[in-house]
Amino acid sequence: MPQLRKDPIIDRWVIIAADRARRPYDFEATPHRPPDRFCPFCQGNEQATPHEIAAYRNPDTRADEPGWRVRVVANKFPALQSDGQPSRQEDDLFTTAEGVGAHEVIIESPRHIASITELSGDEFRDVLGIYLDRLLDLKQDARLVHALIFKNVGAAAGASLEHIHSQLIAIPVVPTVAREEMAGSLDFFSRTGSCVYCEMIRRELAEGGRIVAVQGDFVAFCPFASRFPYETWVLPKSHSSHFEDLPRDQLADLSTITQSVVARLENVLDRPAYNYVIHSAPFDTRSLAHYHWHIEVMPSVTKAAGFEWGTGFHINPVSPEEAAAQLRQAAKSPDRSKHISTRGTG
Amino acid sequence: MPQLRKDPIIDRWVIIAADRARRPYDFEATPHRPPDRFCPFCQGNEQATPHEIAAYRNPDTRADEPGWRVRVVANKFPALQSDGQPSRQEDDLFTTAEGVGAHEVIIESPRHIASITELSGDEFRDVLGIYLDRLLDLKQDARLVHALIFKNVGAAAGASLEHIHSQLIAIPVVPTVAREEMAGSLDFFSRTGSCVYCEMIRRELAEGGRIVAVQGDFVAFCPFASRFPYETWVLPKSHSSHFEDLPRDQLADLSTITQSVVARLENVLDRPAYNYVIHSAPFDTRSLAHYHWHIEVMPSVTKAAGFEWGTGFHINPVSPEEAAAQLRQAAKSPDRSKHISTRGTG
Repeated sequence: MPQLRKDPIIDRWVIIAADRARRPYDFEATPHRPPDRFCPFCQGNEQATPHEIAAYRNPDTRADEPGWRVRVVANKFPALQSDGQPSRQEDDLFTTAEGVGAHEVIIESPRHIASITELSGDEFRDVLGIYLDRLLDLKQDARLVHALIFKNVGAAAGASLEHIHSQLIAIPVVPTVAREEMAGSLDFFSRTGSCVYCEMIRRELAEGGRIVAVQGDFVAFCPFASRFPYETWVLPKSHSSHFEDLPRDQLADLSTITQSVVARLENVLDRPAYNYVIHSAPFDTRSLAHYHWHIEVMPSVTKAAGFEWGTGFHINPVSPEEAAAQLRQAAKSPDRSKHISTRGTG
Repeated sequence: MPQLRKDPIIDRWVIIAADRARRPYDFEATPHRPPDRFCPFCQGNEQATPHEIAAYRNPDTRADEPGWRVRVVANKFPALQSDGQPSRQEDDLFTTAEGVGAHEVIIESPRHIASITELSGDEFRDVLGIYLDRLLDLKQDARLVHALIFKNVGAAAGASLEHIHSQLIAIPVVPTVAREEMAGSLDFFSRTGSCVYCEMIRRELAEGGRIVAVQGDFVAFCPFASRFPYETWVLPKSHSSHFEDLPRDQLADLSTITQSVVARLENVLDRPAYNYVIHSAPFDTRSLAHYHWHIEVMPSVTKAAGFEWGTGFHINPVSPEEAAAQLRQAAKSPDRSKHISTRGTG
């Protein structure tokens, strides 16, 4: 069974999931599926995945058969397992908890495509909609206190399968970054009476230099202390701590701006590998005045090196102001013929 | 000029170093020097680097000429600059500091090799010795409060040049991970009266299951909450908070055990890309009873994905107990004919 372990020095949890070493293509130099290799996520291959947990599908079609537009299944190589209680053992030094939780895969299209810019607006809106469905369902499970939705596109961003998908992990502990965000935003709120994210949005819109796009209630900008070149955050202007509370009539605008951000990245960077992560408050909190959900989009143009891992300190060779200027100018759809190169001159 | 920026929410500093985008091979898909390409670190090419800051060289040879065994130069594309004062500007939301500091490159051999296992024991001992020299020198600069020594080997670990080298960055702030280690170890000390690292060493030696190697006063083990497969830490058994306080007569044993750890990793994982980072207390502290310097060695066998970046949460598919067992069995020198494969079966 997978195990959660807490570092004895830093408040950092790790999932030790030994079975995952056997997932396809792990540790291989070229982890992408060759074109002729069997893809378990393509329409018609539904029997190659675990059973369907949820799907948006055409009337008169059945679970685990073709006819779906978005499909959610358990991860075949889960980092966590769904049964059991998250009991904790600890002594002076070592704390472990059973690796209980949910690890699901959202298959975002029956077609063998890779990026959200290859989905129609309606299709990506359905992906975001099924994210909400899954969160609202998992939130009923009292064992789980936090959920993470994230997407890895491209081998350099950690994807082990090419077919468009994202992942959802729900866990019995609050992970490091979420706890730091909660603590940091609460501290700001205590000092100023405001949500730090609302203040950032106000400043960014007033100054304009780091804005990438605006769409309805949503804004996208390159954050002031961007860790990565072209890192871009998408946030609702209206304050809200929990992504799963998003009104459904907002999904179309969120879909539009997120696709626009990724299209701009693909235009400027020539279709980079990328990740996005939805940052949202823990399940076990009510609506919070100090926290604000958001999506962090991170293209993989630099490699994490020892310096970053050893320090939590990032060196970003492209200022967020320059990145935002390039992204604003970029057409919304990828145009391979005139992309702006950022390659080194050496 | 490079700029240090603090995230408005989390206590995390980022170096915005826009000039670094022009360093060789950045953002390229295959960042390694082709065999026939000019290498600025090879003996005879000393004029291609900034001036020598320090070197171990043969008698009767001169700076910036051949005849050296280890050579330290300023990074040609520094993330920080050496002149100026680290003045800080801040408002409610955004904190910046001038990007003042040192960014040096330690060229570890005049030969065009890549890994420390290709150095003799004496050669790597000299590398460790010159680390001490540089730290003791930079510590005199009152502007600098923390130094990081780290090595990236292989493109997957973030190396932009193949020729064996490590880097030293000295900065005017205490970076996130160091501050977390200071706080976490101080908390343990307050509760128990012991150094948490000394306790870990005692437990690991008593239990044995995660031990990789022992050499004189040094021990190497896979930590209980390893973030990465085959992550291995090297620590002195004798308590010491500052690496630069290491007695010179300990360098031979530290060299031997560190080379042994990397050789075992190269044997088990078929010469992976890897990083190591020396974790040491800030310059501006005296000897600390609660902190213990150590070297973290991290092979690059999994890719950092959105999940890890978004959460600080790592999924490690190889338990540290299994990793340590394989590393203990591995011969000390790489043997390509019978390495133990950990590749996926998919």
